[in-house]
Amino acid sequence: MSILVVGSVAFDDLKTPSENATDVVGGAATYFALSAAHFTDVNIVAVVGDDFGEEHRKVFKGRSVDLAGLERAKGKTFRWGGEYSADLTERTTLFTELGVFESFQPVLPEHYKSSDLVFLANIHPSLQVDVMKQVQNPSLIGADTMNYWIERTPDELSAMLEGIDVLVINDEEARQLSGVHNLVEAAAKIREMGPKTLVIKRGEYGVLCFREGERFATVSFPLDTVIDPTGAGDSFAGGFMGYLATHKEPGDKEVRQAIVFGSVLGSFCVEALGTRRLEQLSRDEVHERYQAFKDLTDFASL
Amino acid sequence: MSILVVGSVAFDDLKTPSENATDVVGGAATYFALSAAHFTDVNIVAVVGDDFGEEHRKVFKGRSVDLAGLERAKGKTFRWGGEYSADLTERTTLFTELGVFESFQPVLPEHYKSSDLVFLANIHPSLQVDVMKQVQNPSLIGADTMNYWIERTPDELSAMLEGIDVLVINDEEARQLSGVHNLVEAAAKIREMGPKTLVIKRGEYGVLCFREGERFATVSFPLDTVIDPTGAGDSFAGGFMGYLATHKEPGDKEVRQAIVFGSVLGSFCVEALGTRRLEQLSRDEVHERYQAFKDLTDFASL
Repeated sequence: MSILVVGSVAFDDLKTPSENATDVVGGAATYFALSAAHFTDVNIVAVVGDDFGEEHRKVFKGRSVDLAGLERAKGKTFRWGGEYSADLTERTTLFTELGVFESFQPVLPEHYKSSDLVFLANIHPSLQVDVMKQVQNPSLIGADTMNYWIERTPDELSAMLEGIDVLVINDEEARQLSGVHNLVEAAAKIREMGPKTLVIKRGEYGVLCFREGERFATVSFPLDTVIDPTGAGDSFAGGFMGYLATHKEPGDKEVRQAIVFGSVLGSFCVEALGTRRLEQLSRDEVHERYQAFKDLTDFASL
Repeated sequence: MSILVVGSVAFDDLKTPSENATDVVGGAATYFALSAAHFTDVNIVAVVGDDFGEEHRKVFKGRSVDLAGLERAKGKTFRWGGEYSADLTERTTLFTELGVFESFQPVLPEHYKSSDLVFLANIHPSLQVDVMKQVQNPSLIGADTMNYWIERTPDELSAMLEGIDVLVINDEEARQLSGVHNLVEAAAKIREMGPKTLVIKRGEYGVLCFREGERFATVSFPLDTVIDPTGAGDSFAGGFMGYLATHKEPGDKEVRQAIVFGSVLGSFCVEALGTRRLEQLSRDEVHERYQAFKDLTDFASL
C-alpha cells in the first residue's frame, strides 16, 4: 500500500561535534520518504524554491519516491541551521528562513488522492487538516506536531488531532500537549483528543506506545558512533508508517514491529551527517538490524 | 544460593512532591536485601547506632534476611535527607550525617563467609576490597559505586574493580568513570578495568548491559504513579543479584532475565515512600509484573 507524506523539504546547515556541512537536503518529508521507501511507494507533497535543482532531487534517486507533488515555487527553499552540543544532547537552532515554505498550500496531484496511508509531518495544523480533506478514505492517518503549534494554534491542532489515527511526537511534546509530566497519564489525556494510537519518541532512550488496552515500550538501538541526530525522529516515523503499509489491517503486533522498524531507521539515520547513511542504506541492512534489535532486547524466548 | 550484601542501613528524611516523612529506615543494603529476599537468603553486613531499635529492625520482618551482621555501635545511625523536584527528575541532598557509618569496618560473621554471591553496595572502595578478602570463593561478586569515590579514591576504586565480576552503576557514573559520553564506548573502557559484566542503570529509561560479545537493553516499566525514587537503584541490584542466585551458572539468558527482575523490583520500590511498597510486596506480584514486563516489551514472539 502506498503512503502519502506532506511536510518540509529543506536545505540544512549542520554543525555537529565531528562534522559540519551546508546546503544539505533535509526536512521532515525527506527523511520520512527515504525511510518509508524501504517498505512501500511514497508520494511526497512539499514545496521547494527555484534554488532546488536536479542535483538536489538526486537524494531520492533509486528509491520508490514519487516527486510529482514536490512543487517548485518562485523563491528560496526553506533553510534551517542547527548546532549540536559536544555530547549531542542539545540542539540550538541557528536560523530558520521559511522562504517558499511560508506560503505553502499543499495541493495533491490527482493520483496521490488514493494513497492508502497518510503521514502529516510537522507543518501548520490547518494545512494538515487541509490535506486530510483532499485524500479519499485512507486506511490510516498519522501525524507529527511540535511545541510551536501546541502553544500558538491549539484550536487548529485540536481539529487535526480529531481526524488522525496515530500521533507520533516526542516526550517533551507529549508533556506540553497534555500538561502532565507522567507519560502514562499524558498518554491517556492525548488519546482522548483523538488519536487512538500514541507513539512517544524518547530519542536515545527509546519509544513508548499507547493504544486501547495496550502498551508497548522499547529501547533505542545502542550505537558506537552517533554523528548527527538530525532527522532521526522523521526517519523513525518513516520506518514506522512504511512497515504498517505492508499490512492490510495492522493490529497490536504489527504496530509493535513497526515501532522497532522505525527505531531501526532512526538508528541508521544518526550514523552519518544528514541523509548520507539513509541514501546508502539497503533493505538487507534494515532487516539485519531488525534481527539485531530482537537479539538485543529478547529475554523471554531465549 | 545465599547472598551477602554490605552497605548502608540508614534513617532517611524524604521530601517528595506528594509526601514527606522523617526517620524512614533506608540505605542501600536495606533496599537491596528487601528485594533480593524474594529469591534467596540474604546476609546483611552494615552498622547502625544505638538509636536503631527493635522497631526499626521490623522493616525486614517476614523476609529471609539474616541480621547477624547488622552491627550496633555506640553513636548515631547514618542519616540522609533528600528532596525531589516536582517532576521527580532531580534530587537535592539536604544533609548527610555519617554517624557510626564514618568508622564502619565490615566484619563478617563466621557463617556469612561462605555466602555464594556477594554484593558490595556503595561504600568506600577499600572497605569493598576488605569484604572481598573475608569471603571464601563466592561464585559471583557484584558492586556499585558513586561519583564521590570515582573522584576522590581512584586507586582504591581500581583495586575494587579488578576483583569483581559485575559492576552495577548509573549512566552518569559510567560516563564519569570512563571519561567518555557514548555509553557503548564507556562500557568497553570500564570492562577493561575488571568487571566482565557491566550493568548501566538509566533510571526511568531502562538498563543497558554489556558482556563479552553480548549486549542487552531494556526499558523501565512505565508507571501511572511514581511517589519516591529513593532506593530504586538498590532495589534493582537486589532483584538482579537475587535472581542470579537462583542459578548455579548464570549465562547470558539468566543475566538478561535477572535485569528484568531487577527492573521489576525497582518499579515496585518507587510506587510508595521509602520501603513501604517493598515491605508489602509478595512473590506473586513480582512474578506477575515480570510477565507484564514481557507483554510490554515483546514484539518478536507474538
